[in-house]
Amino acid sequence: MGKMKKYCYGFCLLISIAINILLSINLYVGGENNQRSLLSWSEKAAAEAEEVAAISCSGHGRAYVDGLVFEGQPVCECYDCYGGSDCSELSPGCAADAESGDPVFLEPFWMQHAADSAVVISGWHRMSYRYADYTTMSKELENYICKLHSLVGNAITEGRYIVFGIGSTQLLNAAVYALSSENSSSPSNVLASIPFYPMYKEQTMFFNSESFQFEGDTNSWQSNNWTNNMDVIEFVTSPNNPDGELKKSVLGGKTIYDHAYFWPHFTPITGPSDHDLMIFTLSKLTGHAGTRFGWAIIKDKDVYEKVASYISVADLGISKDTQLRVLKLLKVAVEGDGKPLFEFSYNKMRDRWDRLSTVFSKSTRFSIQQRHPLHCNFFNETRLPSPAYAWVKCELEEEDDCGAVLEAGKIIGRSGSRFSAKDRYTRLSLIKSQDDFELLLQRLNELVALENGSIDTM
Amino acid sequence: MGKMKKYCYGFCLLISIAINILLSINLYVGGENNQRSLLSWSEKAAAEAEEVAAISCSGHGRAYVDGLVFEGQPVCECYDCYGGSDCSELSPGCAADAESGDPVFLEPFWMQHAADSAVVISGWHRMSYRYADYTTMSKELENYICKLHSLVGNAITEGRYIVFGIGSTQLLNAAVYALSSENSSSPSNVLASIPFYPMYKEQTMFFNSESFQFEGDTNSWQSNNWTNNMDVIEFVTSPNNPDGELKKSVLGGKTIYDHAYFWPHFTPITGPSDHDLMIFTLSKLTGHAGTRFGWAIIKDKDVYEKVASYISVADLGISKDTQLRVLKLLKVAVEGDGKPLFEFSYNKMRDRWDRLSTVFSKSTRFSIQQRHPLHCNFFNETRLPSPAYAWVKCELEEEDDCGAVLEAGKIIGRSGSRFSAKDRYTRLSLIKSQDDFELLLQRLNELVALENGSIDTM
Repeated sequence: MGKMKKYCYGFCLLISIAINILLSINLYVGGENNQRSLLSWSEKAAAEAEEVAAISCSGHGRAYVDGLVFEGQPVCECYDCYGGSDCSELSPGCAADAESGDPVFLEPFWMQHAADSAVVISGWHRMSYRYADYTTMSKELENYICKLHSLVGNAITEGRYIVFGIGSTQLLNAAVYALSSENSSSPSNVLASIPFYPMYKEQTMFFNSESFQFEGDTNSWQSNNWTNNMDVIEFVTSPNNPDGELKKSVLGGKTIYDHAYFWPHFTPITGPSDHDLMIFTLSKLTGHAGTRFGWAIIKDKDVYEKVASYISVADLGISKDTQLRVLKLLKVAVEGDGKPLFEFSYNKMRDRWDRLSTVFSKSTRFSIQQRHPLHCNFFNETRLPSPAYAWVKCELEEEDDCGAVLEAGKIIGRSGSRFSAKDRYTRLSLIKSQDDFELLLQRLNELVALENGSIDTM
Repeated sequence: MGKMKKYCYGFCLLISIAINILLSINLYVGGENNQRSLLSWSEKAAAEAEEVAAISCSGHGRAYVDGLVFEGQPVCECYDCYGGSDCSELSPGCAADAESGDPVFLEPFWMQHAADSAVVISGWHRMSYRYADYTTMSKELENYICKLHSLVGNAITEGRYIVFGIGSTQLLNAAVYALSSENSSSPSNVLASIPFYPMYKEQTMFFNSESFQFEGDTNSWQSNNWTNNMDVIEFVTSPNNPDGELKKSVLGGKTIYDHAYFWPHFTPITGPSDHDLMIFTLSKLTGHAGTRFGWAIIKDKDVYEKVASYISVADLGISKDTQLRVLKLLKVAVEGDGKPLFEFSYNKMRDRWDRLSTVFSKSTRFSIQQRHPLHCNFFNETRLPSPAYAWVKCELEEEDDCGAVLEAGKIIGRSGSRFSAKDRYTRLSLIKSQDDFELLLQRLNELVALENGSIDTM
C-alpha cells in the first residue's frame, strides 16, 4: 500500500513537472510566434482598433475609432437606407443614391488584406516639416508609385518628375497655374471637352486668377478657329468622367491629362501614357477617397518646379501620416505583381456592368454608353471596359430632364448639365458600396419593368 | 527513510501543482491584462512600428517605418551635424541651423506618452470622401478642439463656426479669399505690420487673384490715411512671428488673427481671444508640423461658408487619417486638464530662454527682444513670455547685415528682410530639437566670448 502510494506520488509528480514544462514552453514560444512578447506602447491602440473593428453593424454600416460615441462606446454608422443600432433595418421606400463617385466598392479587398494594410503611427512620427533629404515628399513612396506604374504599364515614369498633391483635386489647379501665361494682360484660356468633370470649371472660376480664365468647350472653340496664336490649356480626361471614353487632345496645345480612371479595373490598358503632364489619384486606384492623395508625372523641369511651388505655397506639402498610409497601401497594391488588387477590382466592376447591361438591354426608354473591347496589356487579354459611371440617356423626346425622370423612380444621379452636357443625360455611379449598387439595380429593374408593363398594355 | 521520501514526493508534487496553477493563471490573465489574446490583424503593423522605433540612433537621429532602407532594413536618419550609421559622429565645424520653425522641441513629450498617442489605422478606415453626417470634418475632432480652447482659455468657441485646413497655411489664403471684395474692379488690399510672417505676402502674390492684392505695411498705409473708403484685410499675428509681440489690429477693418503661437508655452494667456476670424495650427501646439492641420474659428456664417467652399474646391477637405491622428494627439493634450503637455512645453521654453538670456546679457554687440511679465490665466501665475523665436539685433552701426555676421559665427538664422524688416535683425528658432538648441547656444557663446575677448584686449 505504502509502495503504491509512493509510486502514485512519483507518477503524479512526473506528470505535473511535464505540464510545467509544457506551460512554460507555451508561454515562451507561443509568445514569440505571435510577436506577443515584442509589443509594448503600440498594444493599446492596436487593441482599441481591433475592438472597434469587431463591432457588428450587420454588414450595412461600420464603427470607427474616430466615430460617433454613445455612453463612451463607438456606435455603428449605418450606410444609406439602413438604420437601427446595428444597421439591420432597411428603410423600405429609400431612394438609390448613385450621385457621388465614392469608390467604396474596394472596401472588401482591404478587409481581406487587413494585416498587410494596417499602419501604426507613433506619437512622435515625422513631426518635422521635412524628410531627411529636406523635401516634403517621401522618396520611398515615390519609388512605389513608379513601381506600380511599371507593373500596370499605364504610364512612363522614367526620367520624369513626380509631385504629390492633396488628391488629384489640388493638382488640377496647380497644373493650370504652372502652364498658364505669366502675362496678366493676356490670361491663358482653360478648356475641356463636353461632357467634362465639373471641377475643372469650378476651380478655374473660383480662384479668379489674373493668369487664366475658363473658356468652356474645346469643340466650339476649335470650330471657331480661335486657337491661332491663343494661349490654351486643355484638360483631357482619359478615361473620361462621366462617360468612360478614352479621350485625346482636341486642340493639340498645352494639355493636362487627368488619368484618375486609367487603371485596369475601369479600362483595358493598351499601353503606357507618355504625356507632358499626367495626373493620377489614390481615390480611384485603391478606393481611398478619404485619404486625400494624388500625384502628377511631369516631363518639363520648369513646369515641375511651378507645380511644386504651388503645393508648397498652398499648404507646405502633404501630411506625413497620409504619406505613410499611402505607402502601406501601395505596398499591398504591388503584391503579386498587382494581380490580387486588380483582379478583385476588375471582377467587381465587370460583374456590375454585366448586371447593369442586362437591365438596360430590356429598355428602349433608357440607354447607356457603348463599350468597345480593347486589348489589355496588363491582363494580356482583350476585354470590355467597365467604367466607373453609367452615362444614361433618356431616349423619349419629351423626357429631356433625365435626372428628374430617374428621381421619380427613386434613383439619384448627377445631371448632364453638371458636366456641361444636356440634361437628357445623367451619370450613375457604379463604384459605391455593394448595398448601394444592389439598391440601384433594384430601382432600375423596377423602372424598366414599369416601362415594359406599359408597353404590354399599349 | 521511506516516510521522508514520501513526504518529499508529496511536498514536491504540491509545489509542482502550485507552479502549474501559477503558469496557467499567467497564460490566461497575463494575456488578458496585456490584451495579448485580443490582437490579430493589427499585430504585424504594431510589431513593425515597435521594431523600427527600437533602432538606436544614439539620440541624434531616428529610424522610421517609411524611412530610408538599406538591405531591407530601415536605417537611422541623423539630425543635422550628426553622421555615421548610428548617428554618433558629430561633425566638428558644423553650423547651428536656427532657420526653420520646425517645432521638434516637443518630440520627447510624445515619446513619454507613446501608448496614449499611438494610432492604428486599418486598411479600410474611412475610405469615403465624407463622414456619416455628410461633412468632410470629424465632429469628434471639432469637439476636442473646443474642449482644448476651453481648458486653456485662449479662444471663445461657443456659437462659432470651425473649419479645418491643410495646416494654418491653407487657411490664411482661404481667409483672404473669404474676406475679399467680390468686385474685381476694386480688389481688396491685404496688409500686415512689419515685421511679419513672409507667407502672407508670398501667398497673396502667388495666387495672383483679381479679388485681392498685397499692399504691404499697415503703418505706412495708416500714416498716409489710405484707409478711407478702401477695402482692407489686415493680418494680425499674435504673438507675432518673428518677435513674439502680442499684436492688435492697426487699421481696425477686416482682420485675420493668426494665433499660431497663442499657447501657454510661448505666452501668458491673459484671456480668451474673441475676434471675427482666428486661425490656429497643430504645428505650434503639439509640435506636429509634418501633420498638416490647422483650424479657423469664425463668427460670421457667410465668411465661414466661403472659407469652407475654398477648402472644398481646393482639395475636397482634409485626409481622414490625418484627422484621426490629430484626434488622438488632442485626446492626450487635454489629459490632466492640459497640465502635462503645457507644463512640459513651457518648462522647455523657459529653460531655453533662461540660458539664451544669460548669453545675450554678456553682449553689447547683439541684443534680443524685451519680454514683459503678464498674468497667465492658465497657469494662474504671472510669467514672462517665452517666444518661439529670438529676434536678434546687431547693435554695431556697421553690422547692418546681421544674418551675415551670425553666419560668420556659424549660426544660420532667417534675415530681417524676409519679414519685410531691416537686415539688422535676424530671427533665430528656439523650437527645434535639443541637439539643435545646444549647438546654437554653443555657437552664440563662442561669438559673445570673442566679443568680450576683443573688449578685454582693447
